[in-house]
Amino acid sequence: MKEVKDATSFFASELGRTAAPGRAVSVALEGSRPVLVETQALVVPTKYPLPRRMATGLDLNRVLVLLAAMERHVGLRLEDRDCFVSLAGGLRLKDPALDLAACLAVAGSWREKAVPSDMILLGEVSLLGEIGRVPQLELRLREAAKAGFKRALVPSRAAKDLPKTLGIAFTGVADLREAAQSAFGLE
Amino acid sequence: MKEVKDATSFFASELGRTAAPGRAVSVALEGSRPVLVETQALVVPTKYPLPRRMATGLDLNRVLVLLAAMERHVGLRLEDRDCFVSLAGGLRLKDPALDLAACLAVAGSWREKAVPSDMILLGEVSLLGEIGRVPQLELRLREAAKAGFKRALVPSRAAKDLPKTLGIAFTGVADLREAAQSAFGLE
Amino acid sequence: MKEVKDATSFFASELGRTAAPGRAVSVALEGSRPVLVETQALVVPTKYPLPRRMATGLDLNRVLVLLAAMERHVGLRLEDRDCFVSLAGGLRLKDPALDLAACLAVAGSWREKAVPSDMILLGEVSLLGEIGRVPQLELRLREAAKAGFKRALVPSRAAKDLPKTLGIAFTGVADLREAAQSAFGLE
Amino acid sequence: MKEVKDATSFFASELGRTAAPGRAVSVALEGSRPVLVETQALVVPTKYPLPRRMATGLDLNRVLVLLAAMERHVGLRLEDRDCFVSLAGGLRLKDPALDLAACLAVAGSWREKAVPSDMILLGEVSLLGEIGRVPQLELRLREAAKAGFKRALVPSRAAKDLPKTLGIAFTGVADLREAAQSAFGLE
Amino acid sequence: MKEVKDATSFFASELGRTAAPGRAVSVALEGSRPVLVETQALVVPTKYPLPRRMATGLDLNRVLVLLAAMERHVGLRLEDRDCFVSLAGGLRLKDPALDLAACLAVAGSWREKAVPSDMILLGEVSLLGEIGRVPQLELRLREAAKAGFKRALVPSRAAKDLPKTLGIAFTGVADLREAAQSAFGLE
Amino acid sequence: MKEVKDATSFFASELGRTAAPGRAVSVALEGSRPVLVETQALVVPTKYPLPRRMATGLDLNRVLVLLAAMERHVGLRLEDRDCFVSLAGGLRLKDPALDLAACLAVAGSWREKAVPSDMILLGEVSLLGEIGRVPQLELRLREAAKAGFKRALVPSRAAKDLPKTLGIAFTGVADLREAAQSAFGLE
Repeated sequence: MKEVKDATSFFASELGRTAAPGRAVSVALEGSRPVLVETQALVVPTKYPLPRRMATGLDLNRVLVLLAAMERHVGLRLEDRDCFVSLAGGLRLKDPALDLAACLAVAGSWREKAVPSDMILLGEVSLLGEIGRVPQLELRLREAAKAGFKRALVPSRAAKDLPKTLGIAFTGVADLREAAQSAFGLE
Repeated sequence: MKEVKDATSFFASELGRTAAPGRAVSVALEGSRPVLVETQALVVPTKYPLPRRMATGLDLNRVLVLLAAMERHVGLRLEDRDCFVSLAGGLRLKDPALDLAACLAVAGSWREKAVPSDMILLGEVSLLGEIGRVPQLELRLREAAKAGFKRALVPSRAAKDLPKTLGIAFTGVADLREAAQSAFGLE
Repeated sequence: MKEVKDATSFFASELGRTAAPGRAVSVALEGSRPVLVETQALVVPTKYPLPRRMATGLDLNRVLVLLAAMERHVGLRLEDRDCFVSLAGGLRLKDPALDLAACLAVAGSWREKAVPSDMILLGEVSLLGEIGRVPQLELRLREAAKAGFKRALVPSRAAKDLPKTLGIAFTGVADLREAAQSAFGLE
Repeated sequence: MKEVKDATSFFASELGRTAAPGRAVSVALEGSRPVLVETQALVVPTKYPLPRRMATGLDLNRVLVLLAAMERHVGLRLEDRDCFVSLAGGLRLKDPALDLAACLAVAGSWREKAVPSDMILLGEVSLLGEIGRVPQLELRLREAAKAGFKRALVPSRAAKDLPKTLGIAFTGVADLREAAQSAFGLE
Repeated sequence: MKEVKDATSFFASELGRTAAPGRAVSVALEGSRPVLVETQALVVPTKYPLPRRMATGLDLNRVLVLLAAMERHVGLRLEDRDCFVSLAGGLRLKDPALDLAACLAVAGSWREKAVPSDMILLGEVSLLGEIGRVPQLELRLREAAKAGFKRALVPSRAAKDLPKTLGIAFTGVADLREAAQSAFGLE
Repeated sequence: MKEVKDATSFFASELGRTAAPGRAVSVALEGSRPVLVETQALVVPTKYPLPRRMATGLDLNRVLVLLAAMERHVGLRLEDRDCFVSLAGGLRLKDPALDLAACLAVAGSWREKAVPSDMILLGEVSLLGEIGRVPQLELRLREAAKAGFKRALVPSRAAKDLPKTLGIAFTGVADLREAAQSAFGLE
């Protein structure tokens, strides 16, 4: 795994400055250290009977489950699309807290909508489309605030226990549909 | 495998409180310790000639056999559906006692019907659709009762040998069809 | 592999009592010990271009060969069917003596016909559809008699050398067609 | 690998006595010992876009090459057939001398023609359809003669160097077409 | 991995002298040593439903991601083309700095356009089609200049920090579209 | 790997005496020793949507690349053909010098044209269809001359540096098209 020194300043200077469809930023844990990560997705129409699904830096099986959850619970049609999902910067991580960012990167690439450049996404996603709790949520949010992010989507179950003094505004979301509405606007 | 401390209280507080299509709760054994587990299923229509079958936390080959048994003995049409089955909470288990819960999670997601939130499901499922015996059935039922579950479906062969003082009502079911009727109501 | 203590009494009390399409009983050898085993098959119509073949407890490649032999020599059409074959009770065995039971479980599930509940099946099956010899045939038959089985199908080459005092009636069959006729009645 | 004691007497008594489409006998070497072996083939029509090819006891890749050579050099249409090839008796061997027997077992099953029951087949087969030399040809032929076989097909390059006193008549064949004509009669 | 002694003089004398569709030259790092490498691509029309993608010397999964990025961000239709990508000279490398050369070799083979024979290509390519930074860019450019290359495409973010005294002209490109325009002319 | 003693005399006596479509002879290096080898190809029409490609003794991925280069640069239509390529005599080699022989064996089998029986083929083949240099070319040619071959195709870049006293005539070829013309006559 590529070493990430000073990732926060890297992100602060390069990433998250430009919103683009297919880009979504989250905070992973490497051991006990919070690290800003950018998930990227590329969803392209395909004529193949068996559309391709590829993941770089994320677990492919996890991505397949997330794609199915998106199809069912947000109504995203992926059956005639190739889907590629990656972590920028050569990172390889298995942190379920990135689920929500991966989902919204995919939805954004599909719909050509960008997650706002100052928004961070944190939450596990279940087969039933629920946004689940994430360990060390407060630590992650402080790291995002330090890097200049202004807004965050977090699991609604966890939102009520968070202090208000994190330097970043947060919105609790219960499921994928609420998350997509908060990130992209009403639909 | 993720460690599950205090799983019972976790389930008592978070899971099993809300019934949802695709959710079904059972009790697994980790070594000799009973652990409440939630199986989740996601069944989505697909145009693929080879519908996807994925299992997270459960053995995929076992899931494929269960799907075929459901097709034959309950008449569930899965040939044009992608099926995803998982254990919530990152668990990985090979306990055949979860067969029945996995089957009814699938049937529930397909038919948009929910297993009642106070019902626990225990039973192996054979190729012939029979509900087979489960080791330590009594121990598992007591654990479910302790977590607040009020009803259980159990193998009919085992039902007659159970004491009446378990603090949970149980119904013996001989095969998948009886189980589906008991969980979802008559069809 | 799951330990099988007292398998004979288990079968005597639970299995072999009810005839059902897809069920066929045989006697395997574990080391030098005869063990009653139940093969189960599930044959379901499919629209897949590549029907699924799965085996639990039996070798999949062996099962594929048996299916082809059934197609050629008994005329069973399997090209538009998913086929699942398993050994009940979690056993895993590679004893070719079970070939005949596996074949008739498949044929029975397909045609919705049951092998009689007091009949045991013993014989290897070749690509040419011949029923081949089985080691320790006499020992296996005595075990079946002890468990209460009344009839057996055995390889015709071996039938003439068997003593008449085994406590079980046996019929020699030379090939799959003869075996299917003996088990299910004339066709 | 299964031990084969006294294989010659086994074959002399059981095999090679009955001609059947799909059966062809050869002599393999196990170390330096000649062993009579029976190749069996089962060729069944299929509607699958990707017909199945399976080998038991023989190398599958080798069998695929032989099937292609048969298609090109003997004109056998296999593209809409499932092909199964095996060695009888549970043997597993990689002796190229069995190529010719495997080829004629396949051709025989396809065309419902039997190799004569007193004929033995010995020869490697190349991509170009040529019958190539076989080590220890004389030793193999003597073993076949001892088991009661009366006729053999051998590589034409080797035929001229064989002594006439082997107790078995032999015919040199240069390629697959000549071999098929000698085994099945003119076509 | 094949040893490459004196690669620079090899390239200077043999490669890069002739422009051809499907050829693109870059500079990789082997340890800390810059090495001139030639990527080659072959894009051929196909009727297969699942076009082939093969990589020799480059990572296949990386190539698949690059092909998808080309489809989305440059509009290259690859769904009915077989794509082969290789490193000349038997090299095997995983240097992301070669991404841009691999992309333009593919685009060139598809469109029958050649990258100019005196141009070197350096840049990582993201799922979003952005040209990303490359370690040791200056060292790589000096090596290219020494081998006689006159022009280079480099990531626009890095272009502003490069000295003007490298002996090679360079153009900063921000994304795949700009790079294709610079290499092949306006489109 | 099979040991090849006295391979040269074997070839001199058996191979290379008869020209046949699908046959092409080259000289490989085993360590530092030159060995005459015969590549064979079998190209058969197929109705499969995914034509089979198999290699025996040669690397399959290498063969796939060569087939694609033949499609592009010589115009050979392989998309509806099964292709089998092998090294005669059970050899397994990864010498790129055999590329050219493998290519012309394939082209010859397809077009039913034979490489002349006294011609040897030496050259690596790139994705761009160029014939590349081969180590120890002179040593290989001397071995071919010793075995009685009269003509050779060699890379044009190397032809100019060869001595005229090798006992074998050679023609430099720059790409696949020139090589096919030299081997099979003008087209």
